[in-house]
Amino acid sequence: MENKTTKILLGHGSGGRMTHELIAAVFKKRFSNPVLNSLDDAAVLTPKPGRLAFTTDSFVVNPIFFPGGDIGKLAVFGTVNDLAMKGAKPFAISVAAIIEEGLDISVLEKITDSVAAAARQAGVLVATGDTKVVERGKADKIFLTTSGVGIVEKNINISGAGARPGDSVLINGTLGDHGIAVLSARNDFKLRSGIKSDCAALNHLVLKLLSKCRDTHVLRDPTRGGLATTLNEIASSSGVGIILDEKDIPVNGAIKAACAILGLDPLYVANEGKFTAILPAKDAAKAIAVMRADKLGRASRIIGKVVKSPKGVWLNTVSGGLRPIVMLEGEQLPRIC
Amino acid sequence: MENKTTKILLGHGSGGRMTHELIAAVFKKRFSNPVLNSLDDAAVLTPKPGRLAFTTDSFVVNPIFFPGGDIGKLAVFGTVNDLAMKGAKPFAISVAAIIEEGLDISVLEKITDSVAAAARQAGVLVATGDTKVVERGKADKIFLTTSGVGIVEKNINISGAGARPGDSVLINGTLGDHGIAVLSARNDFKLRSGIKSDCAALNHLVLKLLSKCRDTHVLRDPTRGGLATTLNEIASSSGVGIILDEKDIPVNGAIKAACAILGLDPLYVANEGKFTAILPAKDAAKAIAVMRADKLGRASRIIGKVVKSPKGVWLNTVSGGLRPIVMLEGEQLPRIC
Repeated sequence: MENKTTKILLGHGSGGRMTHELIAAVFKKRFSNPVLNSLDDAAVLTPKPGRLAFTTDSFVVNPIFFPGGDIGKLAVFGTVNDLAMKGAKPFAISVAAIIEEGLDISVLEKITDSVAAAARQAGVLVATGDTKVVERGKADKIFLTTSGVGIVEKNINISGAGARPGDSVLINGTLGDHGIAVLSARNDFKLRSGIKSDCAALNHLVLKLLSKCRDTHVLRDPTRGGLATTLNEIASSSGVGIILDEKDIPVNGAIKAACAILGLDPLYVANEGKFTAILPAKDAAKAIAVMRADKLGRASRIIGKVVKSPKGVWLNTVSGGLRPIVMLEGEQLPRIC
Repeated sequence: MENKTTKILLGHGSGGRMTHELIAAVFKKRFSNPVLNSLDDAAVLTPKPGRLAFTTDSFVVNPIFFPGGDIGKLAVFGTVNDLAMKGAKPFAISVAAIIEEGLDISVLEKITDSVAAAARQAGVLVATGDTKVVERGKADKIFLTTSGVGIVEKNINISGAGARPGDSVLINGTLGDHGIAVLSARNDFKLRSGIKSDCAALNHLVLKLLSKCRDTHVLRDPTRGGLATTLNEIASSSGVGIILDEKDIPVNGAIKAACAILGLDPLYVANEGKFTAILPAKDAAKAIAVMRADKLGRASRIIGKVVKSPKGVWLNTVSGGLRPIVMLEGEQLPRIC
């Protein structure tokens, strides 16, 4: 840029010349596509016919870079996954950045590279965006808010209220990787573990699953609050009970060890590349086969079942008891996404 | 809420029980509609046929309450207006909040009330949302990011690149009110003026205008960077020149006085309820009549014309000279929106 600053200044959020230069040098260069490049206040898109899925999430993860990902990748995949969880095919996202004055422009470039790569991987257009800058000490480096739109085809009706007694509860892999990876990247906990975030775009896998198992009732990604909280939401919305089998819940050894040291339960730790699918028991084997055939579903398994009663979520423990699994209380891991 | 706290705590952003209670007590209560109430990760909507307009903006205005508005109203109207500026009929918005730990819940309630009222006024559904909480000192009270979707009808083709030599440049009222209102609300400048932000939803007026003047070429709201920056964007995208008549540019007396004291030029001060329309000169009188018939357009007037050359933006001053009007340099008023 003309003024050769290497740091974000308040002027980069002015809407004037510096904002335009930053958008051209950092964002437009990396996200380039005909819709975005018009730089009008709104993008105009021509989606395929169908119902429209629409979602938003803010990302305040700390630190902004962590093993297996960064805030940019997380923001794109998080939004893409929220659309996929309604059975939608995501087609465009928006990216709004709130930046703390003084952030290195090289850091912004690295995050923008990551957003662009993640969008390509997920197959979505970055259609529109916004940049604001606040004074030093009024934000923490960078916050991203991504929104997304996707198309839901006919006959797809996925909802948190759709679980039915007799359904099987599936998961596409191990629990707790994202939360522990972010925690391990913080200065106050240095775990020598090689643990990586599971941060991934689930839309391709989910659409494969839906093409084979149209009668899927619920899809939900257990992010903040973990699988325990997600299943409580589903049990409550659907008015059913969910019984998990502890022995079937997949958790990596390193995550188990880290959780034991930190006093955490993997059922409550955030995931960013996992989803639970709830579908009729008769379709479960077929679903597992489809999921295992994808690299994001190699460790897929049936972890439980939906029952009429007892309501709520229960864990059939390895020691033989039935333990209630409630929603996450308080704050376990602040700023995990 | 059960735990009776009057302040936002980190736990309210956990995704667990406290988040659910906050969503139920604050957001769901005020935004209630069937789409939002499902509380799934994405909303599913059935828009009318047409192209889809999609936009996003983050709001970091300081202070969060100012004469004539607050961050909630600003966020809704800002997003609705960005859609309207593409000729779209807005139908749904998302609201994502990043909240600083310690914010009074009563303040959040007041802002949420304001979002709900603004959405009703603009005729849009709050379809989906997100809440994150960061530690005290890692944000400034509350930041909102709103995204929106709208439908663009056939034969409507509005773009910043659409200005043609011979077109007239119109504005729907006085300049600079929002920027000076926010500034006057800051502790460091106490202006005794009664100046209020012009913060308004322009979509109804714009759709009236388009129904009468289908051949409108450009619509743009001069927010950050003011009218000067907006017209520079348009002149550059369209490859034309724009000549403004200083005597025709409407600025309230109190704004003129405040700008003179503060060394600001109203052409560069942010507006939140103004738009410029650029359309064939033959349609200008009809457009002005439509605009003046609406309460948001009483002071509408023609302020200039589009020329083939000179390129760029020029002010025909009251003293008879032609002064170049460049894009805003640096940062004039940080965190004005």
